[in-house]
Amino acid sequence: MKQAKHWAAALALVLASGWSALAQTISSPNKGLQLHFSLSQDGAPMYRLSFADGQEIIRPSHLGLEMTDAKKSFDKGLEVTDTKESTFDETWKPVWGEVKSIRNNYNELLVTLKKKSNGDPIAIRFRLFDDGLGFRYEFPGGKDRNFYVVKRELTEFAMTGDHKAHWIPGDYDTEEYDYQHSRLSEIRGLFDKAFTENCSQTAFSKTGVQTPLMLKSDKGVYINLHEAALIDFPAINLDLDDKTMTFRVELTPDAQGNRGHIEAPFNTPWRTAIVSRDARDILASKLTYNLNEPCTYETTDWIKPIKYVGVWWEMITGKSSWAYTDDLPYVKIGETDYSKVKPNGKHAANTKHVKEYIDFAAKHGFDAVLVEGWNIGWEDWFGNSKDRVFDFVTPYPDFNVAELRDYAKSKGVKLIMHHETSSSVTNYERHMNKAYKFMVDNGYSAVKSGYVGNIIPRGEHHYGQSMVNHYLHAVKEAAKHKISVNAHESVHMTGLSRTYPNLIAQESARGQEYQAFGGSKPNHLTVLPFTRLIGGPMDYTPGIFQMDINKYNPDNNSHVNTTICNQLACYVTMYSPLQMAADLPEVYAKHMDAFQFIKDVAVDWDDTKIIEAEPGEYITIARKAKDSDKWFVGNVAGYDGHKTTLTLDFLDAGKTYTATIYADAKGAHYKTNPEVYTIRKVQVKKGSKLSLTSAPGGGFAISILPNKK
Amino acid sequence: MKQAKHWAAALALVLASGWSALAQTISSPNKGLQLHFSLSQDGAPMYRLSFADGQEIIRPSHLGLEMTDAKKSFDKGLEVTDTKESTFDETWKPVWGEVKSIRNNYNELLVTLKKKSNGDPIAIRFRLFDDGLGFRYEFPGGKDRNFYVVKRELTEFAMTGDHKAHWIPGDYDTEEYDYQHSRLSEIRGLFDKAFTENCSQTAFSKTGVQTPLMLKSDKGVYINLHEAALIDFPAINLDLDDKTMTFRVELTPDAQGNRGHIEAPFNTPWRTAIVSRDARDILASKLTYNLNEPCTYETTDWIKPIKYVGVWWEMITGKSSWAYTDDLPYVKIGETDYSKVKPNGKHAANTKHVKEYIDFAAKHGFDAVLVEGWNIGWEDWFGNSKDRVFDFVTPYPDFNVAELRDYAKSKGVKLIMHHETSSSVTNYERHMNKAYKFMVDNGYSAVKSGYVGNIIPRGEHHYGQSMVNHYLHAVKEAAKHKISVNAHESVHMTGLSRTYPNLIAQESARGQEYQAFGGSKPNHLTVLPFTRLIGGPMDYTPGIFQMDINKYNPDNNSHVNTTICNQLACYVTMYSPLQMAADLPEVYAKHMDAFQFIKDVAVDWDDTKIIEAEPGEYITIARKAKDSDKWFVGNVAGYDGHKTTLTLDFLDAGKTYTATIYADAKGAHYKTNPEVYTIRKVQVKKGSKLSLTSAPGGGFAISILPNKK
Repeated sequence: MKQAKHWAAALALVLASGWSALAQTISSPNKGLQLHFSLSQDGAPMYRLSFADGQEIIRPSHLGLEMTDAKKSFDKGLEVTDTKESTFDETWKPVWGEVKSIRNNYNELLVTLKKKSNGDPIAIRFRLFDDGLGFRYEFPGGKDRNFYVVKRELTEFAMTGDHKAHWIPGDYDTEEYDYQHSRLSEIRGLFDKAFTENCSQTAFSKTGVQTPLMLKSDKGVYINLHEAALIDFPAINLDLDDKTMTFRVELTPDAQGNRGHIEAPFNTPWRTAIVSRDARDILASKLTYNLNEPCTYETTDWIKPIKYVGVWWEMITGKSSWAYTDDLPYVKIGETDYSKVKPNGKHAANTKHVKEYIDFAAKHGFDAVLVEGWNIGWEDWFGNSKDRVFDFVTPYPDFNVAELRDYAKSKGVKLIMHHETSSSVTNYERHMNKAYKFMVDNGYSAVKSGYVGNIIPRGEHHYGQSMVNHYLHAVKEAAKHKISVNAHESVHMTGLSRTYPNLIAQESARGQEYQAFGGSKPNHLTVLPFTRLIGGPMDYTPGIFQMDINKYNPDNNSHVNTTICNQLACYVTMYSPLQMAADLPEVYAKHMDAFQFIKDVAVDWDDTKIIEAEPGEYITIARKAKDSDKWFVGNVAGYDGHKTTLTLDFLDAGKTYTATIYADAKGAHYKTNPEVYTIRKVQVKKGSKLSLTSAPGGGFAISILPNKK
Repeated sequence: MKQAKHWAAALALVLASGWSALAQTISSPNKGLQLHFSLSQDGAPMYRLSFADGQEIIRPSHLGLEMTDAKKSFDKGLEVTDTKESTFDETWKPVWGEVKSIRNNYNELLVTLKKKSNGDPIAIRFRLFDDGLGFRYEFPGGKDRNFYVVKRELTEFAMTGDHKAHWIPGDYDTEEYDYQHSRLSEIRGLFDKAFTENCSQTAFSKTGVQTPLMLKSDKGVYINLHEAALIDFPAINLDLDDKTMTFRVELTPDAQGNRGHIEAPFNTPWRTAIVSRDARDILASKLTYNLNEPCTYETTDWIKPIKYVGVWWEMITGKSSWAYTDDLPYVKIGETDYSKVKPNGKHAANTKHVKEYIDFAAKHGFDAVLVEGWNIGWEDWFGNSKDRVFDFVTPYPDFNVAELRDYAKSKGVKLIMHHETSSSVTNYERHMNKAYKFMVDNGYSAVKSGYVGNIIPRGEHHYGQSMVNHYLHAVKEAAKHKISVNAHESVHMTGLSRTYPNLIAQESARGQEYQAFGGSKPNHLTVLPFTRLIGGPMDYTPGIFQMDINKYNPDNNSHVNTTICNQLACYVTMYSPLQMAADLPEVYAKHMDAFQFIKDVAVDWDDTKIIEAEPGEYITIARKAKDSDKWFVGNVAGYDGHKTTLTLDFLDAGKTYTATIYADAKGAHYKTNPEVYTIRKVQVKKGSKLSLTSAPGGGFAISILPNKK
C-alpha cells in the first residue's frame, strides 16, 4: 500500500516534469539497477535511475548544457537520431591500489541527438554498472560545429526525498572544510557557519555543496554523487533546489564568467551516481576509476608507492618556519641576497636537520623524506597575488642540495621535492621544465605541489577549466621526467590516476594540518573515505601522536581531535599509495611501541575488505598487503565510539597468524584522553573473532602477520 | 600684449588647479626646457612643463596612482620628505640603430613623498632632457608596504589648447588603425568611424587615443606623448577630457578590472613628452631609448640586422594559403592525421616553393627567408578562443624541415621561424622552450611571433600587465637561445630594445598588410615615424611593387595606396634593423631596376639626418650605412605630394659620389598611376643640391655611393 502510494507520487512527478512515455531503459549487468532515458514533451533530454524493484533513486532529471550562443544550446527542441546499446566487461590491473585487479563491467546506452533548429549533433553516453551510473555529453563535431562556450550545465540529480547528507560548502576554490551532517532541507540554514575561512574561497549559493557528496535516504539507500575523468572542463559543484530536492550541476566559471570552452570532438567528464543499499559498496566501488581511460604510459615501473616522513609538521604547528629569516619584508627572486640576512634560527629545512630526518627514515624503513621550506621565497610568499614568488631551483643558504642528495642516497632514502606555487600558475609553468630537471639531477622522483591562495592568471579559480588543464599538464610533464605528483589545494580527484598513475595522491580536502589550525571534527575520518577518497588517494598525512599542539608551540592551543589509535587506523582506512608518518621523530621516540604499526603497515595492496561502514560514525577495513600474506585492519570511530566484532574470515584457511592489536585504552577520548592505548598480541586464524572497542574519536589498528613455519 | 594675456590666463589656470607657489624647478641641460614640480593645496603632486622663455607646453597636471585599497592611494594628502637634483651625461653605443652612438644627457629631480595618513613612501623621478621630459613613480617598499593593486593612474598631460593631433582610437588590444588628423576637440566626433574592425579590439572611451601620440599646437610646438621602459605594468592609452584638453593616462585592465599589481621595490614605466618647435627633433629624439636601461646581455654579436624576403604576401593577398587543406573543419594537435587529408593546392610553405625563395634570396643578397604556414594547425587557428592551437614544432607534410635547413645553409641564407600563437599565450608558454630548441636545432636564429585574436588567459588584453610580462618573457627566453624576436599584434614599443636588443622589431601598428585588406591612407608612412617608431623599429614589410591586389587574387580588389618610390623610400624613412622585401619574386622580376635600391640599401646605420618632416605630409631622411661611406635618402609624401630641395651637405668633403635617384614619374599618383618611376644617375659631392618631386602618396629614394678612386 505504501509502495503503491510511492508509485503514484512518482508518476505524478514524472508527468509534471514532462517525462515522456517513450523512455528507453537499460539494466545493470546484475539487473539490480535501471536507467531510463527519455525526451520531455518539449524535447529536453531526461533520465531517471531506479532499482530493479522499481524503487526510485534519482527522479526524472534534466540533462543538457546551455551555451552562451543560445542557438548552440543543448537544452530542448532535440530529437533522437540514433540509440545504441552495448555491454562491456574487462578486468584491469592498477599500477597501485586497494585491490590487485578491478572489474569494469557495464551496460551502455549511447543516445545521439540533434537539435531540430540547426542540426548540431550531441550524444549522451550512459554506462550503468552494478554499483551505479555514469553519463557524459559527447560533441562529435563537424563542419562549423566545433566550438561551444558553456553558459551553464543543466544536468540534474533529482532526489526522492529530504535525504541525510554529509556535505561541505560548495566552492570554486577549496575543499578544506569540516563536513556537515544534515538533512538536505537544513543545508541553507547551516551554510554560513559551515563556510569557514580559507585563504582562497568562493561560494556561489547558500545551498551549494561539493562532490563527492554522500547521501542516505530514509529508505536506507546510499547515494554518492560526483564526476569522473575531469579533463579540459571546469570541475563541478552541486546547487540544491531545496524545494524539490533537486541538485543541478554548477560548473566553475572562468575569469569571464563562462563555464567551459569546448573544442569538438570533445567528451565532458562523466557525471556519476554510486548507489547501494549497503554503505560498504560505496567504499568498495571502483566506478570512478572504471570511467577513466586505461593507463597512458608505456612504462610504470618508475611509479612507486611511498611511505615517508618529512620536515613539515614542525612548521604546521609553528614550532619551526618555512622562512629562513624574519628580516625580509619582501623577496625578489634573482635579486634578494640571502647571504646578507640574519637567519631566524627556526628554519627547519637546513642540512643538519634534514640529515636527522634521513637518519630516522633509514632507521625505520621509510622510503622518503619530504622537505618543505628548502627554497628561497618563503618570507613573502602568499596572500598578495604575487606573480614571481618562487623559482623552484634555488635553495636557502643552509640547505645544501648536493650534500643532501648524496647523503640520502648513501642511506637508501629518497628526498621528496616541494613546489609551493602560491597559486601563481603562470610563474610555475614558466619554471616547470627547469624545476623538474633540477629534481632529476638531484635524485628526487616525487613532488608535493601546493596551490595556496588565489590563482594567477587572476580571476581564474582552483576548479576552473584552465586550472584543471594546468594540474594535468603538470602531471603529464612530470611523467616525462618519471616524477610522481602529490598536489595540494588543487581540485577534487576524479579517478584520473588510472590514466596517469604518477598522480600518486592529492590533498583536496581538510587534511591533518587543520588539527593544528583549530582542530577538525572527531568523526572527520569516518567521512573522508565516503567523500574525498571516491576520486582517488589523499595525502592526509596521518600519524600524529601528540595531540596538544601547544607542546610543539606554546602559542598554538589547537588540539588534534583523535586518539593515537585513530591515527594508526588511518593507514588502513585512508587508502593512499603515499602515506606519511607526520609527527616528529622525538614524539615517535616516546611511543616506539605504537610506532611499530606505522613501520609495519603496507602502502600497496592485493585485496581489500570493507568490514563495516556508516558515514560519520565508523569504518572498519581489512587489507592484504601487496605480494604478501600480511593483513592489516583499521577502524575509525566518530563521536560515539564504536564496538566491532571482527570475524577474520578473510584469512587463508590452514594458516596461523599473530595479530597485534593497537586499541584505545579504557577511558580514551579524542579530547580528554587521546594518547592512551593498549597493544596486545593474539594468535588468530581464519574465522577467529575479535571484540574491539573504539573510543569517541578513536579507533583500532591490527597487524595480522602469518606465523613463520 | 598677447603674451601677457597668455600668462594671465595661465596663472588663472594655475591657481584654479591648486598649484602651489612653492614649486621646484629644474632646467634641461641646454636650459631650453623647464620642469616644475609642486604639491597642490590638498597635497596632490603636480607638474608642468615650459620652454625657458615661459611658453607653457604642459599646463599644471596631476600625478599619482589610485589604488584599490584607498588607504594606499597616491593621490593627495602627500608631503615631500626629500628632493634630490642630479645631472647625467653619457654616450652609449646601440647594438643596432640609426646612429653609431647616442648621448644620454639629462637633469634629474627625485622627489620623495609620503602619505601623511599612513607613512607609505613613494618617489617621483623626473628626467629633463633637451628634447623632452620623462617621469616615473617609484615604490621603494618597506615593512608591510610592498603590494599595491592599481585602480587607475592619475597622471595627466594638460594641453595648452585645442592642438592638432595625429591619433588612432584608444584600445586595449590593437594599434592596427589608420591615423586620424584632427583637432583634439574633433576626436569625439570622429571616434566611431576611426574605430575600424579588428579581430581583437577593446575601446574604452570616445576620446581615448593611443600613444605615441603626435600633437602640434597652433604656436608650432610639436609634442609627442608616450611611455618608455614598459616592464611589468599595463601599457597606457590616453583619455582626453575635451573640455579642458587634458589627457589622463588610461592603464589597461586585467581580467578582474585592476590596472596593475605592484610588488615593491618597483618603478613604473616612464611617462614621456618629447617636445620641440622643430618637427625634425621629434624624429631624431632618443629620449625613449635613453629612459631604458643599458643592454642586459653579456654578448650581442649574435644579434644581426636582417634584410629578408618571405613566403607571406602571397597569403596576405589571398593568392596562397597558410593552411595545407580545406578539408579539416577542426584540428587537434597531436591527434589530427594530415597524411590522410587532401592538400588544397594553395599551400605556399612547401619545400619546393620555399627553395625558390631561398634561391631568390641568395641571388639578390638577402640574409633570410621568412616562412609562414609551415606548421600544422592553420585550418582551425583563430577566432574561437582555442587553447591548444599550434605546437610550433610539427611541420605540414609538404614542408621538410631538415631538407630546407640544409638547403638554406648551402645557399648562405637563414630561415626565419614563424610562431603564430593565436593569442593563446598559455599554450605558447607551455611550448616555448621546446619551440626555441627546435629553432636552434634547425638553424633558425630569428622568429616572427604573432598574437592574432583575443588573449588566453581569457579576459586579459594584449596591452595588460600579464601580456606585457609575457612578451618580455618570450624575448628573454629567446635570448638564452640567441634568437631575435619580431612580435606582431603585441603591444606598443617603448625603447626596450636598448636593454633587450634581440627584440629586433615589432609590428604594433597598421602594417603593409592592410594595403591588401582594403588599403591604408596614402599619408600613412608620413605619420608612422612620428608615432609608432618613437618606441622602436617596426616590421612594416615595405617593398610592394604591384598595387592592384586583384592581380594576385581576382577576389581581392584592395589597392596599395602608394607609389613604388614611396615603397622604396620606406627602407630609409621607416627605420628598422629588420627589413623585408615583401613582394613576390615574380613581381620584382618585372622591376629589377627599381629592385636594385632594395638590394643596395643598408639596414644598419652610423648616422642619420632628418632633412625635413611634417607629420601627415612629408618626411625626408638621409642615413649613412654602417661602417661605410654609402648614404641613402628617402622621402615619403602624403596626399599633396611634396617638393624637396635636397642639399647634400652631409657628404664628406673632397669625395665624389654617384647618386642613383628613384623618383615618381610624371603623373604618378598613389591611386591612379602608382607604378611609374624614373631612375637617373647623377654625380654629386658635399653641398650638391637636388630638386625632387614626390607624387601624392609618393616619394623618392636615392642611393649615394662613393665613387671608386
